[in-house]
Amino acid sequence: MNPFIDLRSDTVTKPTPAMLEAMFQAQVGDDVYSEDPTVNELQAYGASLFGMEAGLFCPSGTMTNQIAIKMHTQPLSEVVCDRTSHIYLYEVGGIAFNSAASVQLIDGQRGKISPNQVAACINPDNIHFPETSLVSLENTCNKGGGAYYTLSEIAEISEVCLQNKIALHLDGARVFNALVASGDDAKEYGRYFDTISVCLSKGLGAPVGSLLLGPKPLIEKAKRVRKVLGGGWRQAGFLAAAGLYALQNNIQRLQVDHDRAALIEKALNEAPYVSAVMPVETNIVIFTLAPEVNADGYLEYLAERGIQGTSFGPQMIRFVTHLDLTDDMISAILQAISDYKG
Amino acid sequence: MNPFIDLRSDTVTKPTPAMLEAMFQAQVGDDVYSEDPTVNELQAYGASLFGMEAGLFCPSGTMTNQIAIKMHTQPLSEVVCDRTSHIYLYEVGGIAFNSAASVQLIDGQRGKISPNQVAACINPDNIHFPETSLVSLENTCNKGGGAYYTLSEIAEISEVCLQNKIALHLDGARVFNALVASGDDAKEYGRYFDTISVCLSKGLGAPVGSLLLGPKPLIEKAKRVRKVLGGGWRQAGFLAAAGLYALQNNIQRLQVDHDRAALIEKALNEAPYVSAVMPVETNIVIFTLAPEVNADGYLEYLAERGIQGTSFGPQMIRFVTHLDLTDDMISAILQAISDYKG
Amino acid sequence: MNPFIDLRSDTVTKPTPAMLEAMFQAQVGDDVYSEDPTVNELQAYGASLFGMEAGLFCPSGTMTNQIAIKMHTQPLSEVVCDRTSHIYLYEVGGIAFNSAASVQLIDGQRGKISPNQVAACINPDNIHFPETSLVSLENTCNKGGGAYYTLSEIAEISEVCLQNKIALHLDGARVFNALVASGDDAKEYGRYFDTISVCLSKGLGAPVGSLLLGPKPLIEKAKRVRKVLGGGWRQAGFLAAAGLYALQNNIQRLQVDHDRAALIEKALNEAPYVSAVMPVETNIVIFTLAPEVNADGYLEYLAERGIQGTSFGPQMIRFVTHLDLTDDMISAILQAISDYKG
Amino acid sequence: MNPFIDLRSDTVTKPTPAMLEAMFQAQVGDDVYSEDPTVNELQAYGASLFGMEAGLFCPSGTMTNQIAIKMHTQPLSEVVCDRTSHIYLYEVGGIAFNSAASVQLIDGQRGKISPNQVAACINPDNIHFPETSLVSLENTCNKGGGAYYTLSEIAEISEVCLQNKIALHLDGARVFNALVASGDDAKEYGRYFDTISVCLSKGLGAPVGSLLLGPKPLIEKAKRVRKVLGGGWRQAGFLAAAGLYALQNNIQRLQVDHDRAALIEKALNEAPYVSAVMPVETNIVIFTLAPEVNADGYLEYLAERGIQGTSFGPQMIRFVTHLDLTDDMISAILQAISDYKG
Repeated sequence: MNPFIDLRSDTVTKPTPAMLEAMFQAQVGDDVYSEDPTVNELQAYGASLFGMEAGLFCPSGTMTNQIAIKMHTQPLSEVVCDRTSHIYLYEVGGIAFNSAASVQLIDGQRGKISPNQVAACINPDNIHFPETSLVSLENTCNKGGGAYYTLSEIAEISEVCLQNKIALHLDGARVFNALVASGDDAKEYGRYFDTISVCLSKGLGAPVGSLLLGPKPLIEKAKRVRKVLGGGWRQAGFLAAAGLYALQNNIQRLQVDHDRAALIEKALNEAPYVSAVMPVETNIVIFTLAPEVNADGYLEYLAERGIQGTSFGPQMIRFVTHLDLTDDMISAILQAISDYKG
Repeated sequence: MNPFIDLRSDTVTKPTPAMLEAMFQAQVGDDVYSEDPTVNELQAYGASLFGMEAGLFCPSGTMTNQIAIKMHTQPLSEVVCDRTSHIYLYEVGGIAFNSAASVQLIDGQRGKISPNQVAACINPDNIHFPETSLVSLENTCNKGGGAYYTLSEIAEISEVCLQNKIALHLDGARVFNALVASGDDAKEYGRYFDTISVCLSKGLGAPVGSLLLGPKPLIEKAKRVRKVLGGGWRQAGFLAAAGLYALQNNIQRLQVDHDRAALIEKALNEAPYVSAVMPVETNIVIFTLAPEVNADGYLEYLAERGIQGTSFGPQMIRFVTHLDLTDDMISAILQAISDYKG
Repeated sequence: MNPFIDLRSDTVTKPTPAMLEAMFQAQVGDDVYSEDPTVNELQAYGASLFGMEAGLFCPSGTMTNQIAIKMHTQPLSEVVCDRTSHIYLYEVGGIAFNSAASVQLIDGQRGKISPNQVAACINPDNIHFPETSLVSLENTCNKGGGAYYTLSEIAEISEVCLQNKIALHLDGARVFNALVASGDDAKEYGRYFDTISVCLSKGLGAPVGSLLLGPKPLIEKAKRVRKVLGGGWRQAGFLAAAGLYALQNNIQRLQVDHDRAALIEKALNEAPYVSAVMPVETNIVIFTLAPEVNADGYLEYLAERGIQGTSFGPQMIRFVTHLDLTDDMISAILQAISDYKG
Repeated sequence: MNPFIDLRSDTVTKPTPAMLEAMFQAQVGDDVYSEDPTVNELQAYGASLFGMEAGLFCPSGTMTNQIAIKMHTQPLSEVVCDRTSHIYLYEVGGIAFNSAASVQLIDGQRGKISPNQVAACINPDNIHFPETSLVSLENTCNKGGGAYYTLSEIAEISEVCLQNKIALHLDGARVFNALVASGDDAKEYGRYFDTISVCLSKGLGAPVGSLLLGPKPLIEKAKRVRKVLGGGWRQAGFLAAAGLYALQNNIQRLQVDHDRAALIEKALNEAPYVSAVMPVETNIVIFTLAPEVNADGYLEYLAERGIQGTSFGPQMIRFVTHLDLTDDMISAILQAISDYKG
């Protein structure tokens, strides 16, 4: 057991007994030969949820994002994304490393970019510039405090991409949080995105893995990229079973995480030592401490109370709610927030 | 259940009940934070077996090899290996893709290269040539029909590398087959190799995963490469538990696979339609059919008998023995070989 | 003869009779063997001007910049530069293409970044981030309207780099404009920069070529990078002779270009249809037209007067002064600016 | 003046007075804007010679080759060539560095590969293998002692490429030597090759530069690759004028170089200390010394006679004839060969 109330990320969750049971019962096979029945079922199920043709099960969301970027670009291509997006900021410069592609960084609003911003940064056909080949959205936006795009916002960006023959990718590490919060229909996503990366090991609670979704021919070719990156695994069905369980059981309960995040937001807004809280839209709470309090000190205080969070800078902290938290833990968090004397 | 007697590869094995039990008892945590206790245990245990300092658990042997190549090279480096080695032939050109490094291909003997061959292909310091940075051995050699290097052969190549300040990597996808066959001590390997890749999902029978072993600082830096390739997984302890079980229980039994491969070799040598069998040294049997028999037709014949193998060219076939085979299956294979009428 | 008064760039200049004479008197040899005496002389002379050990003559400033970036980074490195810098914006994404390195883009002031901005964007040692390896300054700043860094500003940034073991490169495409305007001593540059790229074919008036300057061992290694990019040329001494002539004769006269740019600035500031002119510091004039005038239309008007400029956006235009202009041409430009009726 | 009789390479030649005169008279412009009339003329003229649509003037044959490889491949592609080809052996591993492509190396005959060899190494569509995208021939073959392909041999390889949708590139560093020796028509080459690289600075005697020839849309796109490699130069017309002069005046005289190489071959065949001479087909003479003579010692002996050659290994030497040699020099060479006493 993790002795901490762990708010560092929703990646830290461990399988529930029911998920573990599903894993234990899984039929497996060699996935390099596409013969693992549970992997195949997960891929088909995941694709169907988003109105996509096919899926590819990979060890991480970084891998599904990086494969997608590679599929949509070539060296001398350029990727458009928000300046705070995970694909640019937290994937070790993988856009350059794996795809030798350049980046065009947009200063969005809480991680969200607008159709006009996209349109304004498409390179003209000129030998000095790389070719704008891909726009990537993140939904929800991690660094934007869990802000989400609605379907209509996505549709408008998709329109700009279509007009300019630019692919549109979704980093859907937390796409189900966006869907639960917006009430949008996942199946509609397939109309707007060329590829979607979905993480099973964040809010959904599976131990390992992400899905890359897209058209069948693209996914077939993507297997070669997965292979060269070292993502061709064998009897991955044990993990796929957990992912399948997660997709079938853990989506709607994300609302609980959102509600709990809202409670934390409220407590923080009432705390005198907090100067600002990003409005909570899903399961992420990012807040800024007053100038006299620093993040490391505050995290130390919380640690003494058995609570862990993540520093997002000298004055900034991120909390993430998830399915391993209990009501008692939330109470303990709220109490700790209220008790702090600086 | 796989309805076939599957000789395609030793990657196809599925966990035994005891291994499965170990998996589902595993303590897990978030391995991106290095907090998965079972992953940590596996890494330490694997390293200790080979006299190495540290280990890194990855989704595949391709990933551990590719990370090692990246760690030992830079763009404008050159990798020396046998022309039939897995890192060159079966990893989708990953040496160029992931490391932008060039290759110097040696025509070895059954996949084994000699110290003199290595010495002869080291580039002089001249702006026309990439810098020779890495020699990679494969032990056992897949395309060499499971031939293995002895420790003294390795020591001689290591000497050439040391003298020329070139790193030495081992693709040990089937290193335990080599160790069981040679009787060499794994711990000695740590003296000669800078890095070792060990597969847990081949003859050892684990479902997924490989270990990269090496000095501690190198392994620490290798985590960044694993991350950018998308190999940073979360609660990987379930798979690590299987790997740990495999290392602790399934090494010595590889002798059974070797003995069975020898039985198949004998039957093939007696078959009139077989023109040559590579001398079997471990668990791989590669044989060439007589000119009038073609590989696809022969594989079809076997399939009717419920047996699967791999075509290695128009006249060549590979069989691999492993822990999912039984004595009855071996009898059926021998019978099928003997029954074939062309 | 170019029938136009060409303000598009200072790259358009053609050799004067005296420079041409120097070119055709040049002693040449095979520079791949380092045997071209004129190339060798140019490299040594250029290095000595900046207090550097060695130089490498290349076909373009893009090549000298790209070689420098490659020398100071590896894949998984990050380059820090202003968001409008030439190395990021106009070199076809070469940072990613040639070096597989990531970028950290700073929103500087007219292309100039501050020590604090540099310090704030150095990545911590964390597997999610590429390693900050290089800071690159551009002096003068093209997109900043020819703004320049003073030596003391450079010294402060150098200090941050030294403290963090980060290399500092200068894109000195127009470094002599900066030196003439600031009165700083070129020799001091060698104390602060690890490498300097100097263009001979811009304001200095040579037809082709740039110099990469740096420590001798670095320049030796850089020859391998030049070779792989295809920059290893043979009897380049004809071009080197022009570069040498330019360095020995055309530096001080840049003041004339600056004075002429100031005259144009003055005229534009008086023009009712111009909404803003970036304060002119050297030989670049960037101005914004009033909302009712668009850049393409204005350039068309100028073209009818035999004057060419460059569009820098829907309302923005760049003029560059250089040594192929005459007083009569400047008068014609001033007249055209004053005559425009919208 | 080079005080040596320089047989190291045909790259060492210096412009004749007539060529220098052509350079001096050249009209030039900014080639980045495609405005250099002499560059444009050279590109058109070179293309027309080979029945190609368009050309691109670059600083070296390495650059034209590397651009062509980039145009015909993507990461995860594979290039097929002879094991001794310049693009693999002498371009610093540029296939991996610039294109992240893998290589399939054929053991040809004196550098020449056969249609059957090409056909046999095309990868099947399988995720383990890179995609075979390009075959590259070298004509004449440097390491093959100047051996050349005839048009009918080229046609057969082209047929295999067409059937398999693989591009065919010619490294024509010494293509005019092949054409003069074979009597084939250059215009026919355009029917078989997708791209051709032609060096102007080898046997043709121009100081700097090579042409990449191909279809117009490909050449347009290739300008972006040239730019990112740093090959976008400005007033390159001075060099283009030399290239144009070379193409218009120096092709037929290559026969003289071939005849002189044959004289040297004859002398070497008569020398008791020479164990083998590759049959001379064009202007390259590669010979092996008897076991008791080593290359360095022999080159030292020649140097005392004022003659320079290139070591091609401990017992092997290469001589190249070219237009800076005179009959007297050839006599001196023949005498030196005959005088050697070991």
